[in-house]
Amino acid sequence: MTDKKKILIALTPREKETFFPKNYSDLLDLAAEYKEVDPLAYNAQTWAELLLTYQPEILVSGWKAPTLPVSIIGNPDNKLKYLVYLPGSVRKILPIEFLDAGLLVTNWGNVISRVVAECGLLLALAALRRVGYWAPAMQRDGAWKNEQTVTGSLFERKVGLHGFGSISQELVRLMKPFGVEIATYSPSVPDSLLAEFGVSRAKTLEDLFSQYDVIIELAALTPKNVHMVTEELIRMIPEGGAFVNIGRGAVVDEYALARVASEGKIQVAVDVYEVEPLPKDHPFRNNPNIILLPHLGGPTTDRRADCGKLGIQNIKNYYEGKPLENLITRSIYERAT
Amino acid sequence: MTDKKKILIALTPREKETFFPKNYSDLLDLAAEYKEVDPLAYNAQTWAELLLTYQPEILVSGWKAPTLPVSIIGNPDNKLKYLVYLPGSVRKILPIEFLDAGLLVTNWGNVISRVVAECGLLLALAALRRVGYWAPAMQRDGAWKNEQTVTGSLFERKVGLHGFGSISQELVRLMKPFGVEIATYSPSVPDSLLAEFGVSRAKTLEDLFSQYDVIIELAALTPKNVHMVTEELIRMIPEGGAFVNIGRGAVVDEYALARVASEGKIQVAVDVYEVEPLPKDHPFRNNPNIILLPHLGGPTTDRRADCGKLGIQNIKNYYEGKPLENLITRSIYERAT
Repeated sequence: MTDKKKILIALTPREKETFFPKNYSDLLDLAAEYKEVDPLAYNAQTWAELLLTYQPEILVSGWKAPTLPVSIIGNPDNKLKYLVYLPGSVRKILPIEFLDAGLLVTNWGNVISRVVAECGLLLALAALRRVGYWAPAMQRDGAWKNEQTVTGSLFERKVGLHGFGSISQELVRLMKPFGVEIATYSPSVPDSLLAEFGVSRAKTLEDLFSQYDVIIELAALTPKNVHMVTEELIRMIPEGGAFVNIGRGAVVDEYALARVASEGKIQVAVDVYEVEPLPKDHPFRNNPNIILLPHLGGPTTDRRADCGKLGIQNIKNYYEGKPLENLITRSIYERAT
Repeated sequence: MTDKKKILIALTPREKETFFPKNYSDLLDLAAEYKEVDPLAYNAQTWAELLLTYQPEILVSGWKAPTLPVSIIGNPDNKLKYLVYLPGSVRKILPIEFLDAGLLVTNWGNVISRVVAECGLLLALAALRRVGYWAPAMQRDGAWKNEQTVTGSLFERKVGLHGFGSISQELVRLMKPFGVEIATYSPSVPDSLLAEFGVSRAKTLEDLFSQYDVIIELAALTPKNVHMVTEELIRMIPEGGAFVNIGRGAVVDEYALARVASEGKIQVAVDVYEVEPLPKDHPFRNNPNIILLPHLGGPTTDRRADCGKLGIQNIKNYYEGKPLENLITRSIYERAT
């Protein structure tokens, strides 16, 4: 290991507790010298002053950190080389100029993939058993089943994954015990990776939606992907199937999805929305064929410790000249929401 | 195969469709001669007359079959040797005298275990993510998350299974990808079976509830098990944990469970109840820390075909003198609900 560096830690007490419930001292041990500040106490100007006077080489921060001031780029007193951003969406606090200026930035990246995949499995099972109807109706309306009650299982289903990144790969692992047949539509993914996971390739999105009946939406949000899941596509899902969105809301025509769900031929489960918070009068609400979660797919409270551990590991990697995990590149930055 | 036998099939059109969606002709092919009747058209007397005049050796029936009339036992015109009961709870239609008289009876038995286990996994995931709160609140109240929102994951949890029958064994398989540590309290289960599944033994129910934080209730309902899950036990579950009942409602002190759930330290998910349908004013209702399903753990609509397939296989086994799967013994009958 090379020499330890000066570290600025800008976490609220709540962030500290959530990311380092047991190992905060391990983080401190990695610093030649450290300073802890409450990020909520700073504005743009005092934040810039702090960075230029304390001169940390490493900054560890969370959701509440002030935006990094572009004014410090090129200033000889700015010694910052590595931002350990513990959560995911770095755009809120990081102007892209810092990436161009060579700042290293990591976030929680794929350490949370398995937890998002878990949310996908939960929502697929919940949609098939119609929890979107039963949970409110049992709790609020005194409901009980009758002879017309229909339920579905994931066992031996045909699952279609739209997108095949790290979350889809974790989903394949979680669904393995269910004996499902899995295909994906993801033009850029190589055959070798699909073979490794035992997943077949759908040639078109139409093939995926019409031949697989549990569709999990995980396509990246790019300009050309906006509303690419159209009403026509959604209507292709076989009757008794399910559509689950744990990717990005804007990939889907949400109003079309609400209309199709209302007809009851498929069940729908959604965790992510084009507009968040989801508007109170959105047609997803008060729709018994749709189960809704408020974007809880990300790391659960009890798994945020994984992000803290990753941060500690990445600082060690930085010291030892090893590759950083979940390094933010310009293209990752531009695709992030 | 020995000679085919005379088969009486007493299924409603709905039962026929649900148990044999594609392979009804395979059932008919197994009969030397068959008669199909609508079970709803018979009363106790006409049912007895039919059995004594048509003289089937095999009876295939579902939920709607009339109770087998005890009066036919010992009658030389009663040729019935094997009842293929396609659903589970045979007590409704089968007086125990028939077992004592040597009638062979099978039901869906453990063919449904994996689907009940799936419901248990769904409810465990749902309890940890607090779907019992979010599903109704998102749908009905326009809710959205805030900074106080707490969620939990199954990854790397300590799971306690109360009971270790076929459903628990299937749950172990489904939970494998989550890297959980599993223990069971099930005094009668041999060490060798636990070793095969990689499950450790809790010496007491107190150990299970206090040292594992996702408790799945699957104990059989016997007279000594009634209300064995007491308030004291439930309070031992570590904060942030979950209690899921997919076994039998009467094993649990439900009013105590509702009280503890109200305090919010653990999340609760329930599919089975001491009184079913669940009374409208039961304290499980209108409780945001409890997610409720109306006893949907059994075979989902799409998996009832598995029960029909099992029935066909069992008739073949019967012809070939092989052991019948899920044969109802006196002790199974007495433990059934």
